[in-house]
Amino acid sequence: MPGTHLHALDAATALTPLARDSYQGQTDPRYAHRIGPFGGITAATLLQSVMVHPDRQGEPIALTVNFAQPISDEPFVIEAVATRTNRSTQHWTLAMRQSGTVVTTASAVLALRRDTWSSTEAEFPSVSPVSALKRLASPEAPTWFANYDVRVAHGMPLDDSRPLADKDSITTLWVRDEPSRPLDFVSLASMCDVFVPRIMVRRPVRVPAGTVSLTTYFHADSSKLAACGTQHLLGTARASHFGMGYHDQTAQVWSAERVLLATTHQIVYFKE
Amino acid sequence: MPGTHLHALDAATALTPLARDSYQGQTDPRYAHRIGPFGGITAATLLQSVMVHPDRQGEPIALTVNFAQPISDEPFVIEAVATRTNRSTQHWTLAMRQSGTVVTTASAVLALRRDTWSSTEAEFPSVSPVSALKRLASPEAPTWFANYDVRVAHGMPLDDSRPLADKDSITTLWVRDEPSRPLDFVSLASMCDVFVPRIMVRRPVRVPAGTVSLTTYFHADSSKLAACGTQHLLGTARASHFGMGYHDQTAQVWSAERVLLATTHQIVYFKE
Repeated sequence: MPGTHLHALDAATALTPLARDSYQGQTDPRYAHRIGPFGGITAATLLQSVMVHPDRQGEPIALTVNFAQPISDEPFVIEAVATRTNRSTQHWTLAMRQSGTVVTTASAVLALRRDTWSSTEAEFPSVSPVSALKRLASPEAPTWFANYDVRVAHGMPLDDSRPLADKDSITTLWVRDEPSRPLDFVSLASMCDVFVPRIMVRRPVRVPAGTVSLTTYFHADSSKLAACGTQHLLGTARASHFGMGYHDQTAQVWSAERVLLATTHQIVYFKE
Repeated sequence: MPGTHLHALDAATALTPLARDSYQGQTDPRYAHRIGPFGGITAATLLQSVMVHPDRQGEPIALTVNFAQPISDEPFVIEAVATRTNRSTQHWTLAMRQSGTVVTTASAVLALRRDTWSSTEAEFPSVSPVSALKRLASPEAPTWFANYDVRVAHGMPLDDSRPLADKDSITTLWVRDEPSRPLDFVSLASMCDVFVPRIMVRRPVRVPAGTVSLTTYFHADSSKLAACGTQHLLGTARASHFGMGYHDQTAQVWSAERVLLATTHQIVYFKE
């Protein structure tokens, strides 16, 4: 029931059951990118089809989304099939179609998680606190960006003030939904795509670029996500290689309490 | 035509066309893991179905493989569908079945690559040359390991000589097919899974562990892979987080000439 009291993220990811394993949804103009919707909201919507599915067992540990072609503003149908349910894991195959044509494919792995030995080897970046940074206001940002409170601590996109030779592709930023919304898997899946293509950090020129395939691993369960409430998350992203029209990028997403919530990887098309 | 002159990798990944989009294959006992085949050879076989498909356009840039259930030694059928072919990218949806049951799902993205601005931000690890290291001979290793010449420069699995508190999960190793075989996408896809679960490097105890989902990004085209010939590749792998029964791990795979060929990510189940 999209309405004034529903958060934009919940409205954008709302699905109506059509049949067993089939859901209908609709792009939300508030999450529009330059062509089609923000990739993060598409990933979140595909994950939502699993989260609301009556066959779901467990919680997400992996999500891969392949952006096969631009999504238009007509309604879409998501087919979500639990391909295999094991004792502790469950594998999903997902496809988003418009007028019968596949526009996005995806897979998700869910698991019944349990306490085990635990350790985080990645290091929480050294950054200024949220309160010391200003919300990024970019008049040139795509529409969806207004749904996030982003505060860049390091590595501003399109920053030509640093000499090129000193440059790397690292961005470290604080991010939360705007207006704020309690964290869950769906909102986290979307936030994992909030980092602009690294090519625009490494080189301060705007070039056509877009995610082709995105994989996120979730390191927290729903109770740990709920414990984050509406606090900002800290994300740090970097590419390892650019060349022949594509670059990768990897990001870690941490809670303000320094819990590693997700690691996320993508391969990005760029033109140059 | 499996025979004495066919490399084990080529025999293991050989496919027979059954119908449009459908291929039959057979596990090779030489690539057996403890339960079912080595995950790398499964990834390579799925990629092979795309490489030999008459509809293929371009070369792999991304491959995701979800290991849904153990693969048995009966024949398998791979369904390989080019879901979407764009001007420069092509999206594939793949499934491996045995007796009609899905045992593995996968997706692949191919691209027509072209020269663009290029840069590698990842750093080639500082390691001893291949010639200074001995081939790892582990009597406890699974069968498939005999098909690789692996020389560990740093981070031996199950090494209890270092104090636990000093430990990290990093392994850096040289690897090539044994006997040697010219590098291509299929062999590289397999080698990307040669790193044992990081839990067994971080903690020197053998625990049940296995890859649940694997994603590889290819940064080189076929000519760059061919230029590697039969030289060892350098791989370096590390986890960022262990907990609640799963850990991630990420690896870079470099040529001996210090060209970054692939970055590969996986989420791994572990019991403890």
